Amino acid sequence: MDYQKILNRIENELREFKDAGNVASYIPELCTVEPSKFGVHLITIDNRSYYLGDSDEKFSIQSISKVLSLTLAFMLEDDSLWERVGVEPSGTSFNSLVQLEYEQGIPRNPFINAGALVICDILISRLQNPKQKLLEFARKLSGSSSIDYCIRVSESERQVGYKNAALINLMKSYGNIKNNIETVLDFYFTLCSIEMTCQELAQTFLFLALNGVNPLINERIISVSKSKRINAIMQLCGFYDEAGEFSFKVGLPGKSGIGGGIVAIQPGKYSVAVWSPKLNEKGNSIKGMKVLELLTTKTQSSIF
Amino acid sequence: MDYQKILNRIENELREFKDAGNVASYIPELCTVEPSKFGVHLITIDNRSYYLGDSDEKFSIQSISKVLSLTLAFMLEDDSLWERVGVEPSGTSFNSLVQLEYEQGIPRNPFINAGALVICDILISRLQNPKQKLLEFARKLSGSSSIDYCIRVSESERQVGYKNAALINLMKSYGNIKNNIETVLDFYFTLCSIEMTCQELAQTFLFLALNGVNPLINERIISVSKSKRINAIMQLCGFYDEAGEFSFKVGLPGKSGIGGGIVAIQPGKYSVAVWSPKLNEKGNSIKGMKVLELLTTKTQSSIF
Amino acid sequence: MDYQKILNRIENELREFKDAGNVASYIPELCTVEPSKFGVHLITIDNRSYYLGDSDEKFSIQSISKVLSLTLAFMLEDDSLWERVGVEPSGTSFNSLVQLEYEQGIPRNPFINAGALVICDILISRLQNPKQKLLEFARKLSGSSSIDYCIRVSESERQVGYKNAALINLMKSYGNIKNNIETVLDFYFTLCSIEMTCQELAQTFLFLALNGVNPLINERIISVSKSKRINAIMQLCGFYDEAGEFSFKVGLPGKSGIGGGIVAIQPGKYSVAVWSPKLNEKGNSIKGMKVLELLTTKTQSSIF
Amino acid sequence: MDYQKILNRIENELREFKDAGNVASYIPELCTVEPSKFGVHLITIDNRSYYLGDSDEKFSIQSISKVLSLTLAFMLEDDSLWERVGVEPSGTSFNSLVQLEYEQGIPRNPFINAGALVICDILISRLQNPKQKLLEFARKLSGSSSIDYCIRVSESERQVGYKNAALINLMKSYGNIKNNIETVLDFYFTLCSIEMTCQELAQTFLFLALNGVNPLINERIISVSKSKRINAIMQLCGFYDEAGEFSFKVGLPGKSGIGGGIVAIQPGKYSVAVWSPKLNEKGNSIKGMKVLELLTTKTQSSIF
Repeated sequence: MDYQKILNRIENELREFKDAGNVASYIPELCTVEPSKFGVHLITIDNRSYYLGDSDEKFSIQSISKVLSLTLAFMLEDDSLWERVGVEPSGTSFNSLVQLEYEQGIPRNPFINAGALVICDILISRLQNPKQKLLEFARKLSGSSSIDYCIRVSESERQVGYKNAALINLMKSYGNIKNNIETVLDFYFTLCSIEMTCQELAQTFLFLALNGVNPLINERIISVSKSKRINAIMQLCGFYDEAGEFSFKVGLPGKSGIGGGIVAIQPGKYSVAVWSPKLNEKGNSIKGMKVLELLTTKTQSSIF
Repeated sequence: MDYQKILNRIENELREFKDAGNVASYIPELCTVEPSKFGVHLITIDNRSYYLGDSDEKFSIQSISKVLSLTLAFMLEDDSLWERVGVEPSGTSFNSLVQLEYEQGIPRNPFINAGALVICDILISRLQNPKQKLLEFARKLSGSSSIDYCIRVSESERQVGYKNAALINLMKSYGNIKNNIETVLDFYFTLCSIEMTCQELAQTFLFLALNGVNPLINERIISVSKSKRINAIMQLCGFYDEAGEFSFKVGLPGKSGIGGGIVAIQPGKYSVAVWSPKLNEKGNSIKGMKVLELLTTKTQSSIF
Repeated sequence: MDYQKILNRIENELREFKDAGNVASYIPELCTVEPSKFGVHLITIDNRSYYLGDSDEKFSIQSISKVLSLTLAFMLEDDSLWERVGVEPSGTSFNSLVQLEYEQGIPRNPFINAGALVICDILISRLQNPKQKLLEFARKLSGSSSIDYCIRVSESERQVGYKNAALINLMKSYGNIKNNIETVLDFYFTLCSIEMTCQELAQTFLFLALNGVNPLINERIISVSKSKRINAIMQLCGFYDEAGEFSFKVGLPGKSGIGGGIVAIQPGKYSVAVWSPKLNEKGNSIKGMKVLELLTTKTQSSIF
Repeated sequence: MDYQKILNRIENELREFKDAGNVASYIPELCTVEPSKFGVHLITIDNRSYYLGDSDEKFSIQSISKVLSLTLAFMLEDDSLWERVGVEPSGTSFNSLVQLEYEQGIPRNPFINAGALVICDILISRLQNPKQKLLEFARKLSGSSSIDYCIRVSESERQVGYKNAALINLMKSYGNIKNNIETVLDFYFTLCSIEMTCQELAQTFLFLALNGVNPLINERIISVSKSKRINAIMQLCGFYDEAGEFSFKVGLPGKSGIGGGIVAIQPGKYSVAVWSPKLNEKGNSIKGMKVLELLTTKTQSSIF
């Protein structure tokens, strides 16, 4: 399939596209990004790349990094992992305390903030230097040694991160956080501050299109079954309270971040990353979702 | 792929399988079913059939019929349908009033009871004789003229259907039910009482494995895009509060009913129906889920 | 104390009072009332009357009648009554289904709609002709034979009463409604349609200022202990989600209705009824609350 | 009235009283208290004292101290206080996050944990040394210089105080906490660790029975109106999720603590403190509530 032609056609169609959304405002440092930025990068499993626009510019991947931390935890833990975090969609806004209290400190899934905090707690228990390990993991998957945290962003988020502090304290009260609260929050905010380009992002998660094998280094990262399960969790929980909408319109497993990035996987075919900072009210990139909808429509290639 | 061999192996493995669940008790008439019943029927898109056990015995498909009514409504309505019902997972138990009140009478998706009631309301507005039309639709899709409602079951459910009456009254108070409440409830209880065999069930929904075309009559039932979207909704909302678990373990779009039936779709490959009446606490067939988990594991064929 | 002088002073102070509220709109028939109506009637336990404005005009007492039905049920039942309805404030809006579902069909108190429906159910089980009995009870307490239901109002409410139908069906699903749903709803809507003047209202509830004795007929209506308990329930639950505000500012047990009426009790001293149809967003008469606040401030006579 | 005779009779009646409850377990340090402790102290407004049992033994007054901090804040602030905390009963368990999130960080009332934290925040903004000031205030009201904090208890609570940390972080995220989180929590845990005897407790709050005047020092502590309002808030919110039950059975404004203490006010008559450590599941002293129920029954003296 000529993906470049399709991408070009999408670019053309979107020339008149008006996205009325706003750049994420709750993390001060993220507000400084140029709203009109737009990049796409698609890599097929045989390692061909297709791209558009600002696909080589770094941006804050934010929650997309939760797929990285989940993968790492899933490599280290057996199924007892799922006693501390569920795999069900949350059905409410992405940082709600209600459900967490109702379900006694067990977050619904690893992609809501509470669940990602539990995953951070697990990695801290398992690893000597989790921040360093996670960074090495991202660099290895992407083949890019320039991937790094952005301290300004993590600091900026920490200063307004009271809701996350509320969540973690609530979980601690239920015994579902084992390490020091400050240590876990620090790792969490750092994790979310990773910066990547669309190219790096697509490359990083290509192993999920290949049943767990990273083709760049030709290495199995995770078992077939676990790779499929990460995709399943992305499908059901990857878009805050809009997972249904994304499944409905795009039909691929994926994960978004409030930096305006989205990564999506067509198992057996490709991995694709999109970046456009203006978000809808659910916190997902408007233009990013539109690009992916057009992509699966034009290629008739959703998983359904 | 030799599906029969795989089914036989699954049957063997499950000989010792203890399912501690219970037959659905809230509809009195359903309690009379034999708990040890067990059937599987898989049909590939080139119309080959593979089966096990009581696959030719009729049972109450219950909520699985909501996929039929949704398909019919989706054929008749344009996208304005989605102003009256969402496509997001519910994140709580399947007949909760909480979310419905919070979201002002718009059900989260067409498979929770509230959403299925709205779909019934739409069909009543659109069709002269919706009960008859729906039956004809099921007979046409399955190629089986013996498919029918079971009045004893619909009557039995009506007599305990106070929660559904609560739901529909609440939606009426928000203006999201247009027809007479009794008429809609009557259609809803009748709809849920359809009886099919595993064979009929797998045949009925085979069009969802074929992008909307029923191969039996070689007729397009619904557009490619709509077919994919029904699969997407099943994936995210087909298993009450266990959609994530099913996606995680089985990885196929599907729909369960409290009669113990499950239908699942492997797009481009097959449709499969399972029946075993003992349910877990979430209301899904325990052995049914296990069969499908073994099936996608052994065939390495989930959509992810 | 010269109550008439105080009432006159209050009338003077309120001449410039702007109440920005609106007449209740959800029952069509209630919209026809003149918004500027205003009446006050205070009766002391030694049967002296003091009044202002339209105190002799009938109006729809609505939820205030729930104090009548509760009194009647409390006369007929022993403490097992409290197994079917609680005495705690609801903490949410007055017809919410959330709490009712959370607490498995047991309403928080007899003054929220769900609780009043349970009280109606109890009276239907106990009495041959509950509508007639309740009317006789109101006429006896008030000494006024002209008290009656308003069929136009009860019919009007029935036609929009879907939320009440939702509530009662939900309770029926939990087994907390014993009689036919239609019968209970019919009694409930009729009950709420009683019309009284401020004078009749103050007279009717004077027994609650006298430890259970109606001074007009010099008859004990209910025991000292039960009389105090009805006052206690009014204090905590008499004003929808504004009971705290009323306690805080007025400091008397009382009950409001969306017809714009309020009755309040100063135990050992007086009963007072106010009527002004414009409501705040919580559903309570704005001017009515202000009158009572001024009354207890000027007489320094709250129960606290 | 011969209160001593009545107290003696109550003591007699309760000799066989079985209270099946448990000593508060969530604060480790409180578990060490002797479960059979029992004291009562009643002081009339003309300063006569009546007492029973261990009424001269110190115990941890816990949440009762929230009445002290509220009084102090109410002395310092005007009505803008009520923009940051409500006066409505909470209708759910005493440290729930649900309602706080729903109401955007404004706690329902000053006696739930969230509300008490806001009051602490206000006192920190207003006072140089709030811990010292509060202690002086308690000593002045009670006339007892031995009143002090118990550092072991406050330390013990701090170590398990994750839910309070969750609450305050959530409020901070809504902008309703102005000072440093650690500072506020430290003051809060210290405040709750005050120890008093029943005698000191009854004496401290006697001003609420006297419209705001402390008779010991013959000094107005707070205005008539504010005194009544504190009583009103106690009436509606003083007993966690059991305020209705307490109003219903006892009929006095009061406040309980999980140390097993209760203080109650009969305005114009007396203040009474009870102590018995075994709690019901709502967190209130079982024997303490029973004593007060018998007291108002025998004296026929509830406020209703």
